[in-house]
Amino acid sequence: MKKYSEMSREELQALKEQLDQQYAEIKAQGLALDMSRGKPSAEQLNLSMDMMNVLANGAELKCETGVDCRNYGVIDGIPEAKRLLGEMSEVDPEHIIIYGNSSLNVMFDSIARSMTHGVMGNTPWCRLDKVKFLCPVPGYDRHFKITEFFGIEMINVPMHEDGPDMDMVEKLVSEDPAIKGIWCVPKYSNPQGYTYSRETVERFARLKPAAPDFRIYWDNAYSIHHLYNDQLDFLVEILGECAKAGNPDMVYKFTSTSKVSFPGSGIAAVAASKANLADFKTYMQTQTIGHDKLNQLRHVKFFKDLNGLHAHMMKHADIIRPKFELVLETLDRELSGLDIGEWTKPHGGYFISFDSMEGCAKRIVSLAAEAGVVMTGAGATYPYGKDPKDSNIRIAPTFPTLEELGKAAEVFVLCVKLASVEKLLAE
Amino acid sequence: MKKYSEMSREELQALKEQLDQQYAEIKAQGLALDMSRGKPSAEQLNLSMDMMNVLANGAELKCETGVDCRNYGVIDGIPEAKRLLGEMSEVDPEHIIIYGNSSLNVMFDSIARSMTHGVMGNTPWCRLDKVKFLCPVPGYDRHFKITEFFGIEMINVPMHEDGPDMDMVEKLVSEDPAIKGIWCVPKYSNPQGYTYSRETVERFARLKPAAPDFRIYWDNAYSIHHLYNDQLDFLVEILGECAKAGNPDMVYKFTSTSKVSFPGSGIAAVAASKANLADFKTYMQTQTIGHDKLNQLRHVKFFKDLNGLHAHMMKHADIIRPKFELVLETLDRELSGLDIGEWTKPHGGYFISFDSMEGCAKRIVSLAAEAGVVMTGAGATYPYGKDPKDSNIRIAPTFPTLEELGKAAEVFVLCVKLASVEKLLAE
Repeated sequence: MKKYSEMSREELQALKEQLDQQYAEIKAQGLALDMSRGKPSAEQLNLSMDMMNVLANGAELKCETGVDCRNYGVIDGIPEAKRLLGEMSEVDPEHIIIYGNSSLNVMFDSIARSMTHGVMGNTPWCRLDKVKFLCPVPGYDRHFKITEFFGIEMINVPMHEDGPDMDMVEKLVSEDPAIKGIWCVPKYSNPQGYTYSRETVERFARLKPAAPDFRIYWDNAYSIHHLYNDQLDFLVEILGECAKAGNPDMVYKFTSTSKVSFPGSGIAAVAASKANLADFKTYMQTQTIGHDKLNQLRHVKFFKDLNGLHAHMMKHADIIRPKFELVLETLDRELSGLDIGEWTKPHGGYFISFDSMEGCAKRIVSLAAEAGVVMTGAGATYPYGKDPKDSNIRIAPTFPTLEELGKAAEVFVLCVKLASVEKLLAE
Repeated sequence: MKKYSEMSREELQALKEQLDQQYAEIKAQGLALDMSRGKPSAEQLNLSMDMMNVLANGAELKCETGVDCRNYGVIDGIPEAKRLLGEMSEVDPEHIIIYGNSSLNVMFDSIARSMTHGVMGNTPWCRLDKVKFLCPVPGYDRHFKITEFFGIEMINVPMHEDGPDMDMVEKLVSEDPAIKGIWCVPKYSNPQGYTYSRETVERFARLKPAAPDFRIYWDNAYSIHHLYNDQLDFLVEILGECAKAGNPDMVYKFTSTSKVSFPGSGIAAVAASKANLADFKTYMQTQTIGHDKLNQLRHVKFFKDLNGLHAHMMKHADIIRPKFELVLETLDRELSGLDIGEWTKPHGGYFISFDSMEGCAKRIVSLAAEAGVVMTGAGATYPYGKDPKDSNIRIAPTFPTLEELGKAAEVFVLCVKLASVEKLLAE
């Protein structure tokens, strides 16, 4: 394969004609495919169907301390659910609060609480002139939307294979007391699928923030979401590292079963120091009488323990691994050596991150949409939706069927080629 | 029966000796009873057990528009759940958003949103020097805790049998732009069981608030929670009244199935104008990907429609009516004519409101606690926990068994007598 960048103008023009024709043919097929959101497929959801049965037909609805899970009470989670999500989070149950159906909601509420009430006695952020967050990029659009919604200034930090640029993080965090947090998806990151290295986690734990209320928002959304039995990424547990480093209160860990059981009907949790949990509780005790304990019980009865969770996740992996492989094979086959794109090869999580030539991402996504394939919006992986290079595209292979995905991937690589040729011709 | 106030000192002293002895005997029984919180009893919860079955064994888990309720999507509620809670709220489904498991949480979030983002484009409350709420008293402690938590100044408004003192409400709301809201439990109010009259609702709808972002927090928690088939209180639907009066955006209506199905595992809803709902949605779209649609589906499959809800509530009534009657009979038999207390006789809801002689409520609750009967803390029904007359006590008869409740009611009336005699002797 000849690199596009080495082609003559004539070669590019000939190529473009050929690609235009292929594109017209594909467009004529009237496809309606979606590679935009990190949603499990119906086949994956079927894995948890027995969860609908575990509380049926007169099952015991008391938790292990004898509390009737049908009634009010137990604001921070039933003990067996704390144990289950504690195991999943690799922390002691006493460092866990169980929440409702969405860890995103808990992150949002944590920012909202910090705005109106401050963090552990510090000045409420709404009374400060300026509040800033560090945002490893590309990253998760819904994180960035939360900080944007509260008027928090976001600063891009480049992501590498071993995590965010820690030189930059250390410098900024130690110098600027307006920096109150950083968004992290430390394992099988969204969208790259990178896992922070031991050194990165240790450097996080040893940060010396200028702001006493600086917190690491550690969204461990894909902690057990491996793709391969024999290639498990390993992430150092940060709560323990922070304690060792004398920063016990510096991190909030978030997790949920959204992509383990049912998105929207899972359970979420926070793991943090006891001082932080007390801070969370002052808010939640006024906010609610308690979360859905029956759903907590449902999860415990279905998964039982960490082994149950892992066994379940391997069934998920068996379904989504061929999808990741299909997309990666298509990218390899169609784009390798052309010098018009790079992409990640994750061992877990829900996404592949694709970087096109500079200035092509919006055009690729728009071409794909016109041909009936919805991609995550270009720019979505950056704060304010602004990708400075207009090159990053998040590919979400899990939701479509293999057949749909094959089609969608073909459309995608065609659009990459076309946009790249257009770009080179316009130079 | 002779009124205590007409007794001589000698009579009072003789009475006190007799009551002291009764109290000592009861205390010796080592009771452990609870009339403090508005919790359904286990027998009531059993009424909804079939809700654990309706999604089991391969039941259809798509909503009527074909969306898979197990996956992400549909942020404001599945159509059939909007219809069910719309019927319960007496509004069109297009004026409904379905939330998670707690309407208290939605009220809290509404205040939080108003603090950081303001109401429909108005100045965020956190940027104002002073924000005030009107609080009909006695009222619901958890409402008052929310406004207290956000540093909102609370102003007591006396409650009458037909609702809050509307002369006072009209005057304050029209004169003071710092007044941003009022807490209302308009039907079978907490704790009195009063229902606002037609005139009260109409006067609410015709308010001319000085603040454009003034909102009525209409917590219709007991809308279908009748005690008698033949004595249903009627509450005028306020959303329509507000629209008629040219104030379409002035009210947020809250409801939930917490005391219909399972507290903590029910579904909650807001009914409001479309402009208000749009305001709610800007917040919730950043806060969450969506609420638990499986639980919405569970409720719809179990209750089906408003008739199903009403039939179900009559089963609740059959269980709790004898409990209300037992407490009322005990109060009547033991306290009538003594001039040491007054109490309400509700047609629905979860509470009886008791007013002792001034300055006796704390003593009564403390005496009851010492004798093994937990009551709602004296003062809890007032903002900041401060009952200016120290006389109101909320009685919650639903949770104990009839046998326990009989015992608890006997202890309560004895404590009322004893505290009243003590008070008269100390004068």
